[in-house]
Amino acid sequence: MDYQSLLERVYQETEAFKGQGKVADYIPALKQVDPNRFGMALATVDGGLFTCGDVHVPFSIQSISKVFTLALALKREGEKVWTRVGREPSGHPFNSLVQLEHEQGFPRNPFINAGALVVTDILLDSLSKPLEEILTFISELAGSGSVTVDEAVACSEEEKGDRNAALAHFIKSFGNIRHAVEEVLNLYFRHCAITMTCTGLARAFLFLASKGRHPGTGEAVLTSSLTKRLNSLMMTSGLYNESGEFAYRVGLPSKSGVGGGIVSVLPGHFSLAVWGPELDACGNSLRGIEALDRFTTYSGLSVF
Amino acid sequence: MDYQSLLERVYQETEAFKGQGKVADYIPALKQVDPNRFGMALATVDGGLFTCGDVHVPFSIQSISKVFTLALALKREGEKVWTRVGREPSGHPFNSLVQLEHEQGFPRNPFINAGALVVTDILLDSLSKPLEEILTFISELAGSGSVTVDEAVACSEEEKGDRNAALAHFIKSFGNIRHAVEEVLNLYFRHCAITMTCTGLARAFLFLASKGRHPGTGEAVLTSSLTKRLNSLMMTSGLYNESGEFAYRVGLPSKSGVGGGIVSVLPGHFSLAVWGPELDACGNSLRGIEALDRFTTYSGLSVF
Amino acid sequence: MDYQSLLERVYQETEAFKGQGKVADYIPALKQVDPNRFGMALATVDGGLFTCGDVHVPFSIQSISKVFTLALALKREGEKVWTRVGREPSGHPFNSLVQLEHEQGFPRNPFINAGALVVTDILLDSLSKPLEEILTFISELAGSGSVTVDEAVACSEEEKGDRNAALAHFIKSFGNIRHAVEEVLNLYFRHCAITMTCTGLARAFLFLASKGRHPGTGEAVLTSSLTKRLNSLMMTSGLYNESGEFAYRVGLPSKSGVGGGIVSVLPGHFSLAVWGPELDACGNSLRGIEALDRFTTYSGLSVF
Amino acid sequence: MDYQSLLERVYQETEAFKGQGKVADYIPALKQVDPNRFGMALATVDGGLFTCGDVHVPFSIQSISKVFTLALALKREGEKVWTRVGREPSGHPFNSLVQLEHEQGFPRNPFINAGALVVTDILLDSLSKPLEEILTFISELAGSGSVTVDEAVACSEEEKGDRNAALAHFIKSFGNIRHAVEEVLNLYFRHCAITMTCTGLARAFLFLASKGRHPGTGEAVLTSSLTKRLNSLMMTSGLYNESGEFAYRVGLPSKSGVGGGIVSVLPGHFSLAVWGPELDACGNSLRGIEALDRFTTYSGLSVF
Repeated sequence: MDYQSLLERVYQETEAFKGQGKVADYIPALKQVDPNRFGMALATVDGGLFTCGDVHVPFSIQSISKVFTLALALKREGEKVWTRVGREPSGHPFNSLVQLEHEQGFPRNPFINAGALVVTDILLDSLSKPLEEILTFISELAGSGSVTVDEAVACSEEEKGDRNAALAHFIKSFGNIRHAVEEVLNLYFRHCAITMTCTGLARAFLFLASKGRHPGTGEAVLTSSLTKRLNSLMMTSGLYNESGEFAYRVGLPSKSGVGGGIVSVLPGHFSLAVWGPELDACGNSLRGIEALDRFTTYSGLSVF
Repeated sequence: MDYQSLLERVYQETEAFKGQGKVADYIPALKQVDPNRFGMALATVDGGLFTCGDVHVPFSIQSISKVFTLALALKREGEKVWTRVGREPSGHPFNSLVQLEHEQGFPRNPFINAGALVVTDILLDSLSKPLEEILTFISELAGSGSVTVDEAVACSEEEKGDRNAALAHFIKSFGNIRHAVEEVLNLYFRHCAITMTCTGLARAFLFLASKGRHPGTGEAVLTSSLTKRLNSLMMTSGLYNESGEFAYRVGLPSKSGVGGGIVSVLPGHFSLAVWGPELDACGNSLRGIEALDRFTTYSGLSVF
Repeated sequence: MDYQSLLERVYQETEAFKGQGKVADYIPALKQVDPNRFGMALATVDGGLFTCGDVHVPFSIQSISKVFTLALALKREGEKVWTRVGREPSGHPFNSLVQLEHEQGFPRNPFINAGALVVTDILLDSLSKPLEEILTFISELAGSGSVTVDEAVACSEEEKGDRNAALAHFIKSFGNIRHAVEEVLNLYFRHCAITMTCTGLARAFLFLASKGRHPGTGEAVLTSSLTKRLNSLMMTSGLYNESGEFAYRVGLPSKSGVGGGIVSVLPGHFSLAVWGPELDACGNSLRGIEALDRFTTYSGLSVF
Repeated sequence: MDYQSLLERVYQETEAFKGQGKVADYIPALKQVDPNRFGMALATVDGGLFTCGDVHVPFSIQSISKVFTLALALKREGEKVWTRVGREPSGHPFNSLVQLEHEQGFPRNPFINAGALVVTDILLDSLSKPLEEILTFISELAGSGSVTVDEAVACSEEEKGDRNAALAHFIKSFGNIRHAVEEVLNLYFRHCAITMTCTGLARAFLFLASKGRHPGTGEAVLTSSLTKRLNSLMMTSGLYNESGEFAYRVGLPSKSGVGGGIVSVLPGHFSLAVWGPELDACGNSLRGIEALDRFTTYSGLSVF
């Protein structure tokens, strides 16, 4: 498979989608990004790296961080995590409170905001220096390149954070958040405000294509079984309430963020990070989805 | 991979689950089945067949038929099908009307009852002798063995069919069912009442593991692209509102029915039909899920 | 109180609202009515009658019939009726299925369609010649004037009746409708298709202002206690999901229909029927509400 | 009407209900109250006062305070209040977030918690010393007797206040709360923690039976029209999601609180405060409802 040519073809063909999406604007810090940025980085399990476009520009990973925090929670606490959060697609927008009320504060899955807040609460118990240890965990996965928190974004989120505060207080009212809401939100907004590059993200997700082993050191980040399970969660719930549509078009376990990033994994083969800040109506990178759709269609590569 | 030994190991280990589920009892015709039946049949893309247990006993395939009717609709009408039914997980029980009201008669996906009724309505337009053509389509996929309608089951469903009648009238009130409700229900109850064996089902699903080609004749049943897409739908929505949990534990595109059957596919490798009539709380074969969980865990085989 | 002058003042002042609403058009038979019709008839407990406008033109009473069927069911079956239908405002549109699913086929109140279908089912048991006896019951209340079924409207409803068929099948699936759905709908569409005049309606509702006694004969139609209770139901649930707004503006127990009629009651004093076919967004007579608002504001007459 | 005998008869007959309800226990400060307390105080528009039982013991008025804050908001801001909160029954429990999500932060009515929080936010703008002015407003209505805030209750509510914090943040995320959530909750918990006696409450509600005029001074607290409207809101929404049932049984505009108080009004005649701390499943005084049911049934007095 000539990954390099394929990335370039897809890059060019999707230029036509410039201007069709909308950069996240719910906080000032996010809407300043150049909407025309676009990059793709593919890292293979045997050490290859193929890139195209803006792969060295750091961007806000936002909800993609939920994969890292879940991986860390699973690594520390194992299957016990599932006593506090479910594994089903939600069928509702990422920040909905409706389902949470019917299901008594037990979030459907760890990738909707409610579930990610519960995972954050778990990490506050599990880690002694939570933010520092999350950053170290990601840095070690990424191998090189900076993994930092954009404080401007984090503060901006906090100022506009009433919806997440509502979710956290609501879950706490059912007893499924144990730390102070302020503490949970503080950590949550910070790990969502991590910035990384496409190249860094592709490398950091490679363990999910390698049965859980760190591609550089060979050490187990997660067991092979937990790795399979984390990939399945990305497949059913990784792209908000566009997950089914995305599975249909792309067919790779993936996670997106409102910063415009999407990272996909083909187990046994590669991880692929794309970034384009313009979003579709569901909050996913519009050009990113178009690129991944073409990539899998032209290559015939998908889990299906 | 020694499939035969694996099937036998799994068969034995899951005997302990006898008596823990509950045979479907909402219609008399279904509850007469022997709850202790259990069979597994695995057909490989290169022509192998491995079986264990009650693989030659015909059973009611129920919702598994929705894969066949959807495949036929996609074959006939192509992507146009998606103007009438969606591709997202529902997050609600299979026969819920709640979501349908909020979304104005557009069912979330073709595997919940509402979506399957719309697909049935499409086939009434697309086929001249609908039931006959559905049966022929399945028979040709299965290669041999009988594919028949159990009229006792179909009539029993009709008698107890108020929930489905409610769904159909409701969708029709939004204009998304075009034929008479009686006609749609008549065909729907009949294709759900088809009986097949594990062996027959494994063979009939093999095209989904073979990029859409009939394993015997090599002819394209569906394009490679539509095949991938159908598999993705089974992954996100194939086991009612246990789809996420099942993807997490098993990790294979699959479809279940309340008759106790589940058929799974590993693209490029095999299709695997299991049957055990005792159901869990979500209406899926309890021992069937346990068996598939062990099968994929022991073999390390899954799409993830 | 000079009722006649008040009616005339209100009639004139509300002429300005002509053309601001929309005649019911979901069935052809209803949309043929002249939108400019308007009438008001007030009957007092001491035998007075005050009228203004088109009070002698028969119109389709539609949901107003639900008061008569409920009164008849209460007369026959007493408080037992409440084992099958509730007494709470619904908070949802009149034909919603959402709540019904959460509450397992037990309709919130007898004035939403679901509840009225259950009351109709009760009358099928309670009466030997249901439609005939309903018509007789209303005729005796109205004293004179014709009370007939408009078969064109009834048939038109049946043709477009998928939403109500969905409701009836859905309730039946929970066991709270006992007769065949066709039979229930047949009677339901017929009692909704009854035509009466403003004068007839005002007279027929007078027993609700007279502690349950027939104003002509003095006989008890309902006990004083059941009369109070029926009035309370009209207050909390009589105008679909505009009931709270209407109670706020008008403050009289009332029932509306999509034919454009509204009948209000001031216990101890009068019943007042208004008719204007143009509806607001909730399906209530737009000019009718404006007229009743002015009537109660100018007179200071309301239950509050 | 011999009110005194009636109160005594009702008092005695409802002693049998002791022990059948449950004192509010969600905060420690509330559950310390003696469950056997019971009192009734009836104040007439012509200055009479009839009492029975524990009418001089102060208790936590809780949600009854929402009538006072709404009256004050209407007095200050007039109908403008309705641009921020609705007038329809909710059909959902008092602290539900579901409806609020569908309706974009616009609460159904001022008596569910969401609506009361918005009214509290309005008063923070409208009043210069909000809590002080609320207390003065109520004191002047009550005429004599103490109206104080129980700080132990207010603090206890704050500690357990995650559900209300969730509501407030959620509404703020839609822009319908303008002050800091902490500030809104601080005032909200304090006005809910006001303690009064049955006698004080009966007197303080008497203006609602007197077309808005202060029964002592004759001054207009509210216009006659706004008074009618406030009564209608109590009728359709005053007893949480038991409002319909209560209207059916009692038929008087009323407001309840989880402290066990209920105040009812018969316009033109009297206001009637009852207090019994044991609650039914909806959070309303169990013996209080039984007493009011008997009072209106025996006397034949109700608005219907």
